[in-house]
Amino acid sequence: MNFISKLHSAWVSSNSLLCVGLDPDPSKLPASLHGRPDAIWQFNKAIIDATHDLVCGYKPQIAYFASQSAEDQLLRTMDYLRTAYPHIPVILDAKRGDIGSTADQYAAEAFTRYQADAVTVNPYLGTDSITPFTRYADKGVIILCRTSNSGAQDFQDLTIDGKPLYLHVAHKVANEWNAHGNCLLVVGATWPEQMQRVREVVGDMPLLVPGVGAQGGDVKALVTAGKTKSGTGLVINSSRAVLYASSGDDFAQAARKVAQASRDEINLYR
Amino acid sequence: MNFISKLHSAWVSSNSLLCVGLDPDPSKLPASLHGRPDAIWQFNKAIIDATHDLVCGYKPQIAYFASQSAEDQLLRTMDYLRTAYPHIPVILDAKRGDIGSTADQYAAEAFTRYQADAVTVNPYLGTDSITPFTRYADKGVIILCRTSNSGAQDFQDLTIDGKPLYLHVAHKVANEWNAHGNCLLVVGATWPEQMQRVREVVGDMPLLVPGVGAQGGDVKALVTAGKTKSGTGLVINSSRAVLYASSGDDFAQAARKVAQASRDEINLYR
Repeated sequence: MNFISKLHSAWVSSNSLLCVGLDPDPSKLPASLHGRPDAIWQFNKAIIDATHDLVCGYKPQIAYFASQSAEDQLLRTMDYLRTAYPHIPVILDAKRGDIGSTADQYAAEAFTRYQADAVTVNPYLGTDSITPFTRYADKGVIILCRTSNSGAQDFQDLTIDGKPLYLHVAHKVANEWNAHGNCLLVVGATWPEQMQRVREVVGDMPLLVPGVGAQGGDVKALVTAGKTKSGTGLVINSSRAVLYASSGDDFAQAARKVAQASRDEINLYR
Repeated sequence: MNFISKLHSAWVSSNSLLCVGLDPDPSKLPASLHGRPDAIWQFNKAIIDATHDLVCGYKPQIAYFASQSAEDQLLRTMDYLRTAYPHIPVILDAKRGDIGSTADQYAAEAFTRYQADAVTVNPYLGTDSITPFTRYADKGVIILCRTSNSGAQDFQDLTIDGKPLYLHVAHKVANEWNAHGNCLLVVGATWPEQMQRVREVVGDMPLLVPGVGAQGGDVKALVTAGKTKSGTGLVINSSRAVLYASSGDDFAQAARKVAQASRDEINLYR
């Protein structure tokens, strides 16, 4: 099944727009896992098993694996998700962006090596940096538009012909890059006004929304601004607030409680 | 020695502005290496040994290792460069860009795991995505400004307050991000006019210049447009034209010939 169909099914079957980000920071893992060579994998598996029925997706952030030389544990996590929960879409958060010949290699990393359902990419290098990803028509390609961090304002908000740069990105994606219908955009939860403007440009295109939980995005404002008419269209990511809900051995149960509360809060405003 | 000092020394000791990009594509390696589990490493070592006295730097492109599950061979290449040729700066080409907490992980990947002297990064996410790199004051941080590919025109050339986006990036780097004096910019060889405009903004800041060789940049035009008063200031990268100069067992000697010719051609216009 292609990514977009899988996402639509997952929204319905889980009754959830919540995505859990897998950002395994060794310094924050529970003490019982310290020193284990497979600590990241054990942590991920426990989080996944505790939350799988509450989410429309998982989003492993590759930087947390790369910094720990833990590619094997990322692979194991991806394999487990694909085998145990094949109906849940998996987004590899990598924010790649390079010239075409190099982008071919990054697309192989995401889609062949890790077999992700979707990957995040950076638009700064333009069309020929994106095509190597979008040509995988059954995969999702999630382009940074308006990110959740404070620095988003430095360039993304600069005004060109009366319109901020991030809306130029949204237009480019909607009108050109989405020829296979497999594009999404990243719009941070911390910017509901900007999300509404993006929604007006891209119709029902799904938006990946980081920034709830630890980053402090307002759930009511973002769901109201970003949802589509069917009450979906959003993949709302929470990482740290779920993963590190408890630093004790009850971390998985604590993660489940936070995930359930997040899902339910989101559903109030759909 | 910090990256910038190392680069200045390498320009002098090698009498060269040429950087060789290590983009090991398995389909292009010589037949004698096919099927060897350490083919990438063997290829890199042969290229490095054949060209080390002709270059001011090496630039491994991490995507070519990631797509091949070859992190171990990238590590081995980095270790070898640091041990055998400690005076040559090594730039990890990764074009990372993410929110601060994730950028911390990417900086650890580049500077702690791989011990690169410098890394390339993407400016789209703004200041707090760059600080985690620049705070490593002895390392180089090379920010994409005007890239060498055709898609560079899509967003990088959009005009804001009478000035293209890439010049806004150049100003931001020169005026804010370069507080530790460890920033560089990427400006493609294929755009000498744009390079001259960047040079006017950033003074003597070194520029990493991809796009000669296979990408067709005009050496005379780019050196004239980009050099500083001392006839340096440029790290001119060639990857495919050097690496794949011959597909036979003479690939290393052929690479040396192309590297030498490139260095000499560049030196004509310094």
